[in-house]
Amino acid sequence: MEILFSGCSGEYWRKNIKDITREYPQHEYKITDRNFLPKDIEFTDVLIAYRLKMEQLENARRLKYIFVPYAGVNNFPLKILSDKNIILCNSHENTIFVAERAISLILALLGKIVYFHNDLKKGDWHREGLYGEYWESIREKKISIIGTGNIGLEIARILKVFNCKILGMKKDLRSDFKLENFDFLTDNLEESLKYGEVVFLTLPLTQETERLINEKNIELLKGKYLVNVSRGRIVDEKSLYDALKNKILKGAALDVWYDYPKEGEEKNKFPSKFPIYELDNVVISPHKGAHTEKAEKRDIQFTIKNLKNLFDGKELENIVDLKRGY
Amino acid sequence: MEILFSGCSGEYWRKNIKDITREYPQHEYKITDRNFLPKDIEFTDVLIAYRLKMEQLENARRLKYIFVPYAGVNNFPLKILSDKNIILCNSHENTIFVAERAISLILALLGKIVYFHNDLKKGDWHREGLYGEYWESIREKKISIIGTGNIGLEIARILKVFNCKILGMKKDLRSDFKLENFDFLTDNLEESLKYGEVVFLTLPLTQETERLINEKNIELLKGKYLVNVSRGRIVDEKSLYDALKNKILKGAALDVWYDYPKEGEEKNKFPSKFPIYELDNVVISPHKGAHTEKAEKRDIQFTIKNLKNLFDGKELENIVDLKRGY
Repeated sequence: MEILFSGCSGEYWRKNIKDITREYPQHEYKITDRNFLPKDIEFTDVLIAYRLKMEQLENARRLKYIFVPYAGVNNFPLKILSDKNIILCNSHENTIFVAERAISLILALLGKIVYFHNDLKKGDWHREGLYGEYWESIREKKISIIGTGNIGLEIARILKVFNCKILGMKKDLRSDFKLENFDFLTDNLEESLKYGEVVFLTLPLTQETERLINEKNIELLKGKYLVNVSRGRIVDEKSLYDALKNKILKGAALDVWYDYPKEGEEKNKFPSKFPIYELDNVVISPHKGAHTEKAEKRDIQFTIKNLKNLFDGKELENIVDLKRGY
Repeated sequence: MEILFSGCSGEYWRKNIKDITREYPQHEYKITDRNFLPKDIEFTDVLIAYRLKMEQLENARRLKYIFVPYAGVNNFPLKILSDKNIILCNSHENTIFVAERAISLILALLGKIVYFHNDLKKGDWHREGLYGEYWESIREKKISIIGTGNIGLEIARILKVFNCKILGMKKDLRSDFKLENFDFLTDNLEESLKYGEVVFLTLPLTQETERLINEKNIELLKGKYLVNVSRGRIVDEKSLYDALKNKILKGAALDVWYDYPKEGEEKNKFPSKFPIYELDNVVISPHKGAHTEKAEKRDIQFTIKNLKNLFDGKELENIVDLKRGY
């Protein structure tokens, strides 16, 4: 088979590609950056990639498998892959780190960590009134977690240490279904938005979840905090900006965005066409959920292991349902 | 008895003072700000105060009890109180919030929350290299907690959710002593500084702990993170600045300081004579550990309850050992 590694750079990838090349010399291995041309993939059977444009697939007459060293597959043309009967596998090894980032971000938001840091740097102690300005503790807060996949489960597990009361929203919920660390489960979005003092978004971006939070239901988040570590477009961009600006939302911690930098723009690209990033009641983060050394290594290890499953005729893990999109 | 409330302003204090005045009308109650004069305290039997200067005590011929609605009592002239046989009680109701703040600060430091926030605001995504710049997960890190009082115990309890390996340092340690959530205990400072990848300082400021970390032992923290939520002066000021500037310390999260604002300086007072606050590898916070609404209310409730213990002839809680200083 011909194996194409696209965008798999860095020392750890190099080591792993070298190892598998030696271990399975019967296959042919090619390495390219993420912007490979249609002709590069003409005879490829297996693609390892972080993203893929429709046009890159045009000449892919032999492609049967794609391995994504990541959880979110919204940067792949899923409909076309489905039509062509291509199997796509992802990796969930980074999910515990995304959950940790969600916790770090909400504690920073409630704790006014960024706001106090930047002001103390200028000599301002926020000491108005008797004791000075308060921060908010997460202890015993009511929490809604929209999406009870691996990330949602891990966030719930961590928050239980602070004695939070936790609602989970899961679609296609059976009435007898239970999940550890969740006090309630529901499949009702309105109920979920109403319940939590803090609402976490931890669900994949699909046609169904795009603009799940929008101008019609964002009012339900009045006085609450929103944390998004999944994908920006799950929340309607203008509704989010308006709700933050008009203090409907008390605050938001955002790791995921609407506008991402193309190559060369990494130091000069605002993450939204609305100045969400200029508001005082946000903590913003440049999509860093999985960007720890351990997370990247685990994702690479898992991807290589799954590739070996294919080589060895074993069952593949984490096959994505291309219709559902996760 | 004459009861003097000093610096006990704010709505919640007012309500509680009003209530106790009604409930125990046999006593005389006076209210003053924190800068009361020696003559104001001449006939006071019981003082409730957040701080006290030696000079304020000069005429206090009847003073027998002081209640501090806080944990740290280093702003009281303990030697003189001891000589005069005055009993001092503090409150530990805020300790779980100080622990939460320590966790929020270390997650912000390891997660580069402030640094990424401020840069994304300018359009910089920190995307150098393959995946961009990493942040560090706290998961499975080795932790040293210097001081196993209430704050240290709570930090250990929270960190166990991230599967950290935790050393606690406690003085006068008996060999058979065990503490939940700690993997090891020691009374050896050098061992404690060497062990942790993250070192938390959670001990009271006393003559014994002042400059506990100094130019002689700070080298032991090479490549590590330091979190101080107790009192600034436990770490020698210049040694801390030098170690951070020269990247001996990898980073520090600091809620406690060397220079505090006097009245009127709250918006214009740098927290150290060294520009620690200008370094990139710090997260700084204006001594906010206990500044949550819940913490303040619990401290006030506890102080009132202890005052009632006195009125009712019951045993007082949290009597500070004036020689040890906590």
